Amino acid sequence: MKVIKYPKREDWSTILARPTKTVKDIETTVNQIFEDVQRNGDKAIQKYTSMFDGVVLDSIRVSSEEIEEAIKTISEDLKKAIEVAKSNITCFHKAQQTDRVYVETMSGVTCWQEKRPIQKVGLYIPGGTAPLFSTVLMLAIPANIAGCSEIVLCTPPSANGKIANEILYAAQLCGVTKIFKVGGIQAIAGLTFGTATIPEVYKIFGPGNQFVTVAKQLATKYSVAIDMPAGPSELLVMADDTAIPAYVASDLLSQAEHGVDSQVILVSTSKKLVEAVNKEIKRQVKALPRIVIATKAIENSTSILVKSTSEALDLINEYGPEHFIVCTKNTAYFTDNIANAGSVFIGNYTPESAGDYASGTNHTLPTNGFSKAYSGVNLDSFTKSITFQKISKQGIKNIGKSIELMAEAEGLEAHKKAVSIRLESLKKGK
Amino acid sequence: MKVIKYPKREDWSTILARPTKTVKDIETTVNQIFEDVQRNGDKAIQKYTSMFDGVVLDSIRVSSEEIEEAIKTISEDLKKAIEVAKSNITCFHKAQQTDRVYVETMSGVTCWQEKRPIQKVGLYIPGGTAPLFSTVLMLAIPANIAGCSEIVLCTPPSANGKIANEILYAAQLCGVTKIFKVGGIQAIAGLTFGTATIPEVYKIFGPGNQFVTVAKQLATKYSVAIDMPAGPSELLVMADDTAIPAYVASDLLSQAEHGVDSQVILVSTSKKLVEAVNKEIKRQVKALPRIVIATKAIENSTSILVKSTSEALDLINEYGPEHFIVCTKNTAYFTDNIANAGSVFIGNYTPESAGDYASGTNHTLPTNGFSKAYSGVNLDSFTKSITFQKISKQGIKNIGKSIELMAEAEGLEAHKKAVSIRLESLKKGK
Repeated sequence: MKVIKYPKREDWSTILARPTKTVKDIETTVNQIFEDVQRNGDKAIQKYTSMFDGVVLDSIRVSSEEIEEAIKTISEDLKKAIEVAKSNITCFHKAQQTDRVYVETMSGVTCWQEKRPIQKVGLYIPGGTAPLFSTVLMLAIPANIAGCSEIVLCTPPSANGKIANEILYAAQLCGVTKIFKVGGIQAIAGLTFGTATIPEVYKIFGPGNQFVTVAKQLATKYSVAIDMPAGPSELLVMADDTAIPAYVASDLLSQAEHGVDSQVILVSTSKKLVEAVNKEIKRQVKALPRIVIATKAIENSTSILVKSTSEALDLINEYGPEHFIVCTKNTAYFTDNIANAGSVFIGNYTPESAGDYASGTNHTLPTNGFSKAYSGVNLDSFTKSITFQKISKQGIKNIGKSIELMAEAEGLEAHKKAVSIRLESLKKGK
Repeated sequence: MKVIKYPKREDWSTILARPTKTVKDIETTVNQIFEDVQRNGDKAIQKYTSMFDGVVLDSIRVSSEEIEEAIKTISEDLKKAIEVAKSNITCFHKAQQTDRVYVETMSGVTCWQEKRPIQKVGLYIPGGTAPLFSTVLMLAIPANIAGCSEIVLCTPPSANGKIANEILYAAQLCGVTKIFKVGGIQAIAGLTFGTATIPEVYKIFGPGNQFVTVAKQLATKYSVAIDMPAGPSELLVMADDTAIPAYVASDLLSQAEHGVDSQVILVSTSKKLVEAVNKEIKRQVKALPRIVIATKAIENSTSILVKSTSEALDLINEYGPEHFIVCTKNTAYFTDNIANAGSVFIGNYTPESAGDYASGTNHTLPTNGFSKAYSGVNLDSFTKSITFQKISKQGIKNIGKSIELMAEAEGLEAHKKAVSIRLESLKKGK
């Protein structure tokens, strides 16, 4: 890791700059595939599946037989592990349920807010060498708790036309209603427009490569909501001499193995800690199967020495990390004052891996500084709140004059009259 | 209004279709102005203010003297009306505050979720003939309750370089921190990139014409969040013979006066009611100053006769209206089962105007069918939730094995090792 010692505040934005990518070229491709899927439906889906995934499928819908087969292949140990994760994720997301908010704002004027499930949601799970079944848990479990009635999962098939057993296992376990062997841009287009086979949905969740990211962005132009904009995964660790260097190194490496564009930052007030962590990284990286990726990501990463914890806090809030591990003597200072972060991990025995898989928190988090305005996926991501109001005869008498005056001042006479006509009738004792 | 009697289900989507607009031409303009503001800051802002608003301003920031002057011009009556609205909006949005969610998901594994304010928010208020100061209340009050530290308001100046007194009055009353005389695309670009004068913000709220709408959409590409996508305002009224036709007509007209593209729909099981409402509309529209706009909007609108309340509910849920008035014998059937709507108004004495101005609910609502996935603006729109977790030594012993197994199954060895290294140390009694 590069070590930057006591940088000036005006240099922070340069030091913390994330690599930005131009997506102009991708946009043209994405637009074309969207138009094709909108016009030609399943036929276009089949064409792009053949083109990008190298397989021609008779049926893209996963059958119950395929699911049954997949279940058999999962070891009892892994099933138990997934059960623990499911139980914890369920527990934490159920706890996020809220009662309706009911208020009589003035006599006779009652207002309330209720959350209702988004009826149809789409979950995108990337394919590739590693089956990211943990993301199935992170999305399908809260969708189910929220009460979404249609939970559609799309994931690309491998060249043999199959989907990883772990993904199928997790999907059936967590209440996914339909699973399709469709990936990439064509999957997002299918969920956006619907085809004879794939149902259209109201909101699309899940990670993906840059093609999927641009496709999700385009989906929003067609009135489909998305969970959040995407970007490379990030970890920032704040550590002082109370941190155990070997643990910190292992956490930084777990982030680094994601990809060469992973963002890994260590912030510390202790020169000694920074040196010890860097030494540990060199030692531990050798044992990793993904050594090439991790080494490259670590080379692009930065250790930043700062003068004080308050300076550290400011710097961290300016960056707004997706994952934020705090291993310091006074962790409360950071947890009380952190303004921008996706998820915070506290102390020496709380690795990011815990939140990635099993502790209960969601691992779909705002990266790329989006934590300044976006929440990670949570129960509310699968609901929307609707407001209600009921005004009694006395209520409209109490509030009517105010509405009339304001509507008049805005020059909206019909808005005023909708109140006046009621007040006049009530005056006449009707 | 066109009257459509007992349409078939397969025709609903055609009947309920909203007019869609192509924005390709606008996009080019918006892109150019964004690039100019990003490069040239305040100079570009000045250029476009001169071009679009016809005024050259020495200073775009509203001074405290201007605010003092504005306050003096507001009548005591209007001040009192605004005070009532402010009090109700504050009451309803304060009631939406939630405690942190704290759970020990398994022994030694604690997870919690806390909401923190979005630090910097931008509020856009359209200019034009009518000063939409009610929107200032709807956005600034919850921003203030949420604890946003920078609340920046942009609104276009009139040709004399001024902003409506009502907007300035409402802004200072509701805790806006900075007010700028900047409108249109250049305002959204200024809030996105920041200039020497205008601070950059993390999320932009507020309505606007199609230029502002496209600009807000573009802002999301530069990592700025927005409240929701926009579209023409809508009202759907469900009424039976218990509804008072004159009231229903007044509500439909209050929506119709917004613009010729306003969407107004009446759904009913009663032919008699539909006829009576249409008669009332013809009578009432004559008295409106905006008769031309309202007449045109009503001509484009539809009354739909349906066979049953259950059919009505299905049709309404398929449409997902922004505003939904229900005036029927059994209102609970609709309020219990409505899945897609922005805000619901119940009974004969609850006109949409109440929610537009003063009852306490927010009037920034999802239109264009976005209610299927989006909430209206509420307190949470100004916050994001951050998750936290802390695992004890015993906790990592309890959960560690599950994490290791799942990480291994996903082929992420470093994720596994971040746990293993801790478990091994603990085994050695370190």
